[in-house]
Amino acid sequence: MAEESQGKRYMVGVDLGGTKILVAGIGGDYTILCRAKVPTDSKEGAEAVVDRIGWAVSQVVKEMDISPDDVAGIGVGAPGPLDPETGVVTFAPNLNWNSVPLKAMLEARLSAPVFIENDVNVGVLGEHRLGAGHGVSDLIGIFVGTGIGGGVIVGGKLYQGFNRSAGEVGHMVVRAGGPRCGCGNRGCWEAVASRTAIARRIAKAFRKGEKGWLYRATSGNPSRIKSRALSRALAKGDPLVVREMKREARYLGIGVANLVNLFSPRMVILGGGVVEAMEKWLIKQVRRHVLRYALDHAMKDVEIVPAALGDDAGILGCAVLVEERLKA
Amino acid sequence: MAEESQGKRYMVGVDLGGTKILVAGIGGDYTILCRAKVPTDSKEGAEAVVDRIGWAVSQVVKEMDISPDDVAGIGVGAPGPLDPETGVVTFAPNLNWNSVPLKAMLEARLSAPVFIENDVNVGVLGEHRLGAGHGVSDLIGIFVGTGIGGGVIVGGKLYQGFNRSAGEVGHMVVRAGGPRCGCGNRGCWEAVASRTAIARRIAKAFRKGEKGWLYRATSGNPSRIKSRALSRALAKGDPLVVREMKREARYLGIGVANLVNLFSPRMVILGGGVVEAMEKWLIKQVRRHVLRYALDHAMKDVEIVPAALGDDAGILGCAVLVEERLKA
Repeated sequence: MAEESQGKRYMVGVDLGGTKILVAGIGGDYTILCRAKVPTDSKEGAEAVVDRIGWAVSQVVKEMDISPDDVAGIGVGAPGPLDPETGVVTFAPNLNWNSVPLKAMLEARLSAPVFIENDVNVGVLGEHRLGAGHGVSDLIGIFVGTGIGGGVIVGGKLYQGFNRSAGEVGHMVVRAGGPRCGCGNRGCWEAVASRTAIARRIAKAFRKGEKGWLYRATSGNPSRIKSRALSRALAKGDPLVVREMKREARYLGIGVANLVNLFSPRMVILGGGVVEAMEKWLIKQVRRHVLRYALDHAMKDVEIVPAALGDDAGILGCAVLVEERLKA
Repeated sequence: MAEESQGKRYMVGVDLGGTKILVAGIGGDYTILCRAKVPTDSKEGAEAVVDRIGWAVSQVVKEMDISPDDVAGIGVGAPGPLDPETGVVTFAPNLNWNSVPLKAMLEARLSAPVFIENDVNVGVLGEHRLGAGHGVSDLIGIFVGTGIGGGVIVGGKLYQGFNRSAGEVGHMVVRAGGPRCGCGNRGCWEAVASRTAIARRIAKAFRKGEKGWLYRATSGNPSRIKSRALSRALAKGDPLVVREMKREARYLGIGVANLVNLFSPRMVILGGGVVEAMEKWLIKQVRRHVLRYALDHAMKDVEIVPAALGDDAGILGCAVLVEERLKA
């Protein structure tokens, strides 16, 4: 009886990625109680992917040893663009999805309400409420990996804008006429500052004969230029990698400065594989460039900090999402 | 008696520029009832400038044939950065001002409350409430002249951010490594897309011998390359000007697309001398580039429109500012 009167205290977070789906059972105090991981296998089609999510959710509910009725809600971070209200994933190239009604499909399989949000926004929500941005009501979160994603918190809430698409930082042009981006334009932030962009520049240097520590460590194979390898090469002082990571820090700094000038946040949180692998060095370098490129009055008392939750930002953010949507 | 019961229905707007101060007496229905214009003469020092503002305000109050007590408030659009709360202009290079307590100085001279705000923000407030953005609660206003200024309206209110400096669009880097900006950095939006930037490129072409209609009209004098002259040269088909204005439209489009991707506004309003002089042609060209550079879902139902109030955006925005601050 006492337990029932406390209401539904459990949530499930689902981080839907291009290759794997991470699911976690989360308690009311945001403790991760158990986890499940299943492959996405998007080539089998949306129905099969949603079946797998449903199965993994049931697994964590079982593992928490609770009834499905004790689950207050299921939060899903999905690749965007999507409509958080209707729960339809508009377009997700890495899943080969077009207008997939994810929320409705999941609710047909599960008994708890489902809330979906862009995966990057969910990660930023997690960092905002439980990670590096705890207690800070105006911040921008940026994740640097194969692309660059971002989310904006204004007045303690996810800032979405008219088309609910705000914070699309990756395609902000910072070098007009620069390298071609996956989107077809030139000089997007992620075309110069993502891990993909770093690897492309380094592969080019390999071909020109710059063969240092990283070349030997990767046998000159560009697909092996991952964040960890870059971090080690940087520590070893590989001149090519030092030069390219300095360039990376400058491009990251320029983009962050743009965001500081435009949004005037209190904090900028930097996360994602590239940042995590060489956090201390990179944050320090980026901060230096931001101080140079952002306007002095916009940078007053602004902190630039590393993300704190790592891979858990997404699933924890899903729990925050559930709580916020249930309150709304 | 009846009039008194309606309260204080008059406002005064002050548009403080680098060379002139525009003052207007404004009725409760936002009708401009009378105007005054005095030179700024900032070299005489802040006290003298504030004296002149005070004198011009008294003049318009006299001309409206009302008592100073009938003035609900005085709104001032001043060059920023400034602190709207304390009313201190932090730094205004074109006035040679450093930490000038403008609000306090004016309130010592005048009997009505004084509210100050960044001049560009005030112009955007005017366009939002009384001009092209009437009825639109999420928009961005951009003014292109010797520099590029901008302001952001979110949920019907000026979006200011943590340091109250949001919307500093002019120093957003869009071409890293590009032309040097007045701020010391390279590739800022205003370093490639302001009238100053256009004139600099055209002057360079003059020196290289590209001598068309504009060269003859200006006698090759770069300081005569004003918006009107550019507009006429464009209409005459001067190849140099056509090429440079196409480049201008592209740079404007890239910057607007960045803002659309980041803020997801419902509308973007373009104003300022360059836009006004060739509104139809330029807006059409800019729209084309924005459609290319912004993400499709961010541009859905987004309008890109010319400003509607011309030079009155500032003083009318001051009246809106007074009304909003009195309500707050």
